Amino acid sequence: MSAAQTVITGELLIDGAWRAGTAGAMRAFDPVRGEEVGPAFGMATIDDARDAARAAAAAFPAFRALEPAARAAFLRSIADGLDEARDALVERALVETGLPEARLVGEVARTSGQMRLFADVLDRGTAEGIRIDPALPDRAPAPRLDIRQRKVPLGPVVVFGASNFPFAFSNGGGDTAAALAAGCPVIVKAHQAHPGVAELVSRVIERAMREHGLPGGVYQSLLGSGRDVGTALVKDARVKAVGFTGSRSGGLALVRAAQDRPEPIPVYAEMSSINPVFVLPSAADGTLGEGFVGSLTLGAGQFCTNPGLVFVPRDPAGDAFVDAAVAAVRRAVGQPMLTRGIHDAFQSGCQRLATVATEIARGTRGPGPCAPAPRLFEAHLEQFLARPELSEEVFGAAALLVRYDDAERLPEVASRLEGQLTATIHVDPEAEDAAVAARLATELELRVGRILVGGWPTGVEVGHAMVHGGPFPSTSDGRSTSVGSLAIERFLRPVAYQSFPAALLPRSLRDGTALPRLVDGQPLV
Amino acid sequence: MSAAQTVITGELLIDGAWRAGTAGAMRAFDPVRGEEVGPAFGMATIDDARDAARAAAAAFPAFRALEPAARAAFLRSIADGLDEARDALVERALVETGLPEARLVGEVARTSGQMRLFADVLDRGTAEGIRIDPALPDRAPAPRLDIRQRKVPLGPVVVFGASNFPFAFSNGGGDTAAALAAGCPVIVKAHQAHPGVAELVSRVIERAMREHGLPGGVYQSLLGSGRDVGTALVKDARVKAVGFTGSRSGGLALVRAAQDRPEPIPVYAEMSSINPVFVLPSAADGTLGEGFVGSLTLGAGQFCTNPGLVFVPRDPAGDAFVDAAVAAVRRAVGQPMLTRGIHDAFQSGCQRLATVATEIARGTRGPGPCAPAPRLFEAHLEQFLARPELSEEVFGAAALLVRYDDAERLPEVASRLEGQLTATIHVDPEAEDAAVAARLATELELRVGRILVGGWPTGVEVGHAMVHGGPFPSTSDGRSTSVGSLAIERFLRPVAYQSFPAALLPRSLRDGTALPRLVDGQPLV
Repeated sequence: MSAAQTVITGELLIDGAWRAGTAGAMRAFDPVRGEEVGPAFGMATIDDARDAARAAAAAFPAFRALEPAARAAFLRSIADGLDEARDALVERALVETGLPEARLVGEVARTSGQMRLFADVLDRGTAEGIRIDPALPDRAPAPRLDIRQRKVPLGPVVVFGASNFPFAFSNGGGDTAAALAAGCPVIVKAHQAHPGVAELVSRVIERAMREHGLPGGVYQSLLGSGRDVGTALVKDARVKAVGFTGSRSGGLALVRAAQDRPEPIPVYAEMSSINPVFVLPSAADGTLGEGFVGSLTLGAGQFCTNPGLVFVPRDPAGDAFVDAAVAAVRRAVGQPMLTRGIHDAFQSGCQRLATVATEIARGTRGPGPCAPAPRLFEAHLEQFLARPELSEEVFGAAALLVRYDDAERLPEVASRLEGQLTATIHVDPEAEDAAVAARLATELELRVGRILVGGWPTGVEVGHAMVHGGPFPSTSDGRSTSVGSLAIERFLRPVAYQSFPAALLPRSLRDGTALPRLVDGQPLV
Repeated sequence: MSAAQTVITGELLIDGAWRAGTAGAMRAFDPVRGEEVGPAFGMATIDDARDAARAAAAAFPAFRALEPAARAAFLRSIADGLDEARDALVERALVETGLPEARLVGEVARTSGQMRLFADVLDRGTAEGIRIDPALPDRAPAPRLDIRQRKVPLGPVVVFGASNFPFAFSNGGGDTAAALAAGCPVIVKAHQAHPGVAELVSRVIERAMREHGLPGGVYQSLLGSGRDVGTALVKDARVKAVGFTGSRSGGLALVRAAQDRPEPIPVYAEMSSINPVFVLPSAADGTLGEGFVGSLTLGAGQFCTNPGLVFVPRDPAGDAFVDAAVAAVRRAVGQPMLTRGIHDAFQSGCQRLATVATEIARGTRGPGPCAPAPRLFEAHLEQFLARPELSEEVFGAAALLVRYDDAERLPEVASRLEGQLTATIHVDPEAEDAAVAARLATELELRVGRILVGGWPTGVEVGHAMVHGGPFPSTSDGRSTSVGSLAIERFLRPVAYQSFPAALLPRSLRDGTALPRLVDGQPLV
């Protein structure tokens, strides 16, 4: 990243140009020092939002007409730009998020890797969804006409950046990568928790757009009020889909706004999850209890996949798990949370938990005003089943251990859970309770997006097989994922072409192309 | 079909048993004779709906656990049963719908063929969506864990039968076939336009359920009020998805009901479409005009894909098209529409059209009280653009011809259209206006589910490449199709399995299975 590109001007990127936002100003917040940092960031007006929607719609025809290889090259330029700019990006993110440096370095690599993953998908053609049913002129009683199918992009997409991942779920994050790969222009409503990072990432993407001669409406970024600018973007008739990561109330408000449009559009909102962990008697021990606290406190517990609910047997092995977890939490020092608001919500969530469960361990506060002590609560299974509020997410490093007497009850308990991003089973596959694990997995299939046997749910691999999604309320649309290459499908739609002469067919559907496809339902690669 | 199975008792099929509906009674209506026919059909109560939802939820675990081959065998038994019962089915459908016998015979074959198509998909394993990212224990900086993905069924599905297809879009129709193939139990809210057909088809499916030893909740059928029983089914927490074919107001009411649930669920509603046809100057002639009227009047115009809007050049070739169409409409005799309500809605739709367009041809009424005369209207392009009501669907054999002076304007006109199931382009691919056709196709890709070059949109091939769907308002969810094998995806959801020992993995994800899959993103078959 050249020196010019590390200067943060506090402007909005609209239609390829930087402009000052005039709807008030904000500054970034350093949660470690507890103070605001410069420069001033101008906030977008409703007119800015409208300009962005217009530019995105104007850029759509040219952008979707790009050959997949050209789109892949664009994504790889973004990836290279992110890697080159890594030090400057991490430096600013350290100030704006208080997250550990190693985590931020890893997150940049994950984000550039994500761009390259979608470039690979474009090269392989697996997301085009090509299906060909050739003509059967001699079929009786009626001939069959030639019909071919592929997927086309929906149109401009609005992406709401997340607070907790300044790179991987923000301006250049998963939804942006998936939408650009699909051929959809992207307008990011950047998160106010890291406005400087948003601008630096946007400058990287802007440079790649220029290099590839793309219109300015392909990628745009604005800071602004969610209620005003965010809603205006979602309501704009030119916008055709929305990606969001955040709170349940925020996500549901967007779903409602999108449904109330004259033309409703899909909203992919990732909202809340407590990521239950089932420790079966055969697997419970002190080492596991310590490992659990490592996952719980990672990144101040600010992961969508943070393990907030753990079922632990009420037996000596379970006691060993709990004792080790208690000791580890007591040793733990709080890390700064991203904003004061997130910190305060964590504290009141813990207060709520404390009224119905027993607090069994508390760590110490960390540096600054936003680093609460990690906390651990305990309840018996009967208590848990009787008090639905014990299933509510507390975002941060707090968890509830639920002690059970009979592992045979766990599948039925699992069947009562709300939709979740993940669930984890700890079991010795050779032990007798592996049968319970099998029944648990069968129940969990219907309630979660990803099931783990062993390990911890934090740390979401970006690959082809990943699902980071799940039934409501973990997301607003459980048929989709926000991580991994399947995410491209959220921004695509199938179209059939009947009896097209070759000259009019999209190139990928013509005879002689060797893309993966179904021919008469038979897969060919 | 044995004699016992051709007796229509007027009962509801709930949890494997026939019971009398007690919320009032109705009789079928013969639209040709204009009179009611026996027997009396008992209508379902809210309690019946609740019982059906309970039975469907109870049947779900066993049904989804069936191996794909067993589900395929079940679908093939239904298909065989439909073919065996064909004569009795057609006989009853003739009375209840007034549709021509050849059409009904063909529709039964299409419906059994559809069941077999999904059986083939299950045999091939293409809908499981298998993705495998093997473990990379030596990867730096962190090893990669084994992650595998497949698709699982959503749960019980409610299918609303359509008026206009007593077989292909009703009890044993496309949504039922797709949902059963996916592993989802089905509750059909049968259409009151053909209650006897609904019962006969249900008896066929019931017999197949028994043959395969399936629980009674796998397939159920009720007649009842849409507002009461239909809404109760959609609101039932055990129901996880809805398929619907019908009016825009009906579809939107279901979408709203599904969104207002504590756990919102997807609704696939196919609603309205006028299926624009663009006749370019190079293709206009009298033969085409005559062919158009054949498609327009097919099945009394009661197709979702009926061509209701045709753009015709204002030149001698266009005049020839119009003259031939006018002559053909004048010769045409109305066929009975399905119900008095549908007939009356057609008449008032034509009245509405007549206030803003010029009626240029009218056929003669057909037999009985429900067979209105086919009608043809004309307007100039400027008129069409100025009056949005000219784009509203009139369900039945009425169409609007829009005359244009300059074919170059058509792409822009297409860009203003609402979402449609289909659009058709007539062009000579060697002529100069093929360039217009290419630009038209590019615009139409964003607005329709299927584009045809030549031919007519009525007649929807049931294959792997078909898309019968399209952007709002043609459907409530343009990412899906209700015809063709891709329809199975509307009832599936991806799940990732991380670090599963082989014994706990679903069988299709174990090593050594040869199903089509992505391994590290690379397709293997």
